[in-house]
Amino acid sequence: MKIINDVKFLIVGLGLIGGSYAQALTDLGYEVGAITRSQSSIDYAVENKLIAHGTTKIDKDYISQFDVVIFALYPKVLIDWIEKNQSCFKSGALLTDVTGVKGPIVYKIQDILRDDVEFVGAHPMAGKEVYGVQNADKSIFRNANYIVTPTEKNTKEAIEECKQLGKILGFKTIAELSPEKHDEMIGFLSQLTHCIAVSLMTCKESEHLVDYTGDSFRDLTRIAKINDEMWSELFLLNKDELLSQMDLFMDKFKSLRDSIENEDKEKMKEIMRLSTVRRSLFDKK
Amino acid sequence: MKIINDVKFLIVGLGLIGGSYAQALTDLGYEVGAITRSQSSIDYAVENKLIAHGTTKIDKDYISQFDVVIFALYPKVLIDWIEKNQSCFKSGALLTDVTGVKGPIVYKIQDILRDDVEFVGAHPMAGKEVYGVQNADKSIFRNANYIVTPTEKNTKEAIEECKQLGKILGFKTIAELSPEKHDEMIGFLSQLTHCIAVSLMTCKESEHLVDYTGDSFRDLTRIAKINDEMWSELFLLNKDELLSQMDLFMDKFKSLRDSIENEDKEKMKEIMRLSTVRRSLFDKK
Repeated sequence: MKIINDVKFLIVGLGLIGGSYAQALTDLGYEVGAITRSQSSIDYAVENKLIAHGTTKIDKDYISQFDVVIFALYPKVLIDWIEKNQSCFKSGALLTDVTGVKGPIVYKIQDILRDDVEFVGAHPMAGKEVYGVQNADKSIFRNANYIVTPTEKNTKEAIEECKQLGKILGFKTIAELSPEKHDEMIGFLSQLTHCIAVSLMTCKESEHLVDYTGDSFRDLTRIAKINDEMWSELFLLNKDELLSQMDLFMDKFKSLRDSIENEDKEKMKEIMRLSTVRRSLFDKK
Repeated sequence: MKIINDVKFLIVGLGLIGGSYAQALTDLGYEVGAITRSQSSIDYAVENKLIAHGTTKIDKDYISQFDVVIFALYPKVLIDWIEKNQSCFKSGALLTDVTGVKGPIVYKIQDILRDDVEFVGAHPMAGKEVYGVQNADKSIFRNANYIVTPTEKNTKEAIEECKQLGKILGFKTIAELSPEKHDEMIGFLSQLTHCIAVSLMTCKESEHLVDYTGDSFRDLTRIAKINDEMWSELFLLNKDELLSQMDLFMDKFKSLRDSIENEDKEKMKEIMRLSTVRRSLFDKK
């Protein structure tokens, strides 16, 4: 398998995630290069042994030496980048990404891509509430899930290599989902939860409440510190799915609200018991 | 101050919280007694040195030996207990509680109470997702807040003693709020968050999603395992306040939802930036 042999990895976009990929791969003994916008990120990554070398320029001679190219860019920048620069890839190269929405990304890239390279979408479900290569930290993968989202255009070999990549990066679980199933799942588990956290945090000035706060409010708003540029882009790319998850949540919330207004204690308890059973099942895994 | 001297404490209701109070006070060298419904809880607590002695009976000779009585009962049971048994208290005794809603409890008790004993409401904002004296654990107070909710009927001395109790129990912060302010705050920080967690957990069968779950969903649903009997009682006791907090949240959630539907990226980003700033301020404390 290509990825176990002496392959060279190129990271495009050296932020928190790109930098963490670079760190994990370099520590495994691979040669890792990088392309990113700022020279200071390259300098930092070379000095801290995250990458062997890097450049801020789009240079065919540089890019064409890499067997695997990992894109850690914002969704629209990613598609633009591939549209403009795909002539630079080595023939036979494997391309993959880290984008949090798959449907609108994967099919688009596969549509426009050269026939002699292959793109397999992937979503490393890991992160931190800080940004930039300076915060790169491969340990964020340790308890995290890595999801590969292949389509009919992908070969078995490329899908396997992409899963292998997740394994060597140190992810706990490697899963495979269609881009559509991925976006539905992420709309519920990740995007909806961020919408809830953000909404709760914007309800009122709550700084003065901090002396009275138990863990509940802290837990529910931890993810309310959010990269507005990236998340607004991701939300809009998954708009229909996210709206339907938000509506589902509003229905359930409204139903609990009405049971309280009507002092329908049996209904309230029934909802709480369902919630308790579901969360308990969830805990066991 | 009474509480520093050789006082005897009575815990009424030996569950998780009552048991944890007992443990903390016994470990400090106080003599702690208990009244609770089940003999097995008394036996467990005596064997494990949480209390010196206890009984399942309402006995004036027993109760009248105690200087401080701490009620760790469900709200309605608490009021009934005091109505029925207040003749048993030692004259001059200080009474306090642990109830999560204050307005409907504190004023009611103070209205019906004998003149020669004093009740000061308190809310230890600590807990665990397990129940019973077997899970008693005084360390749950360590990073938690203890809120005293005095009224005009309370004396300075009794309020101070109640705060002192919070301190010796090991709470991080001792605060004072009117019962009304307490219920408003708790409606937002605790009850609303539980309503959100419960609603999210009941949205769909999510057990099969566990392989794809990052921390977000886990964080937002941790408190969705909930004691339906106690919380439905607390929600209804704070009904108006909770409904107004739920409506506030729904407004904010709806506004984010509509900005997504309208693809109003500027509005979305504005909401996310506000959320980020507020959560950051919150983190510093």
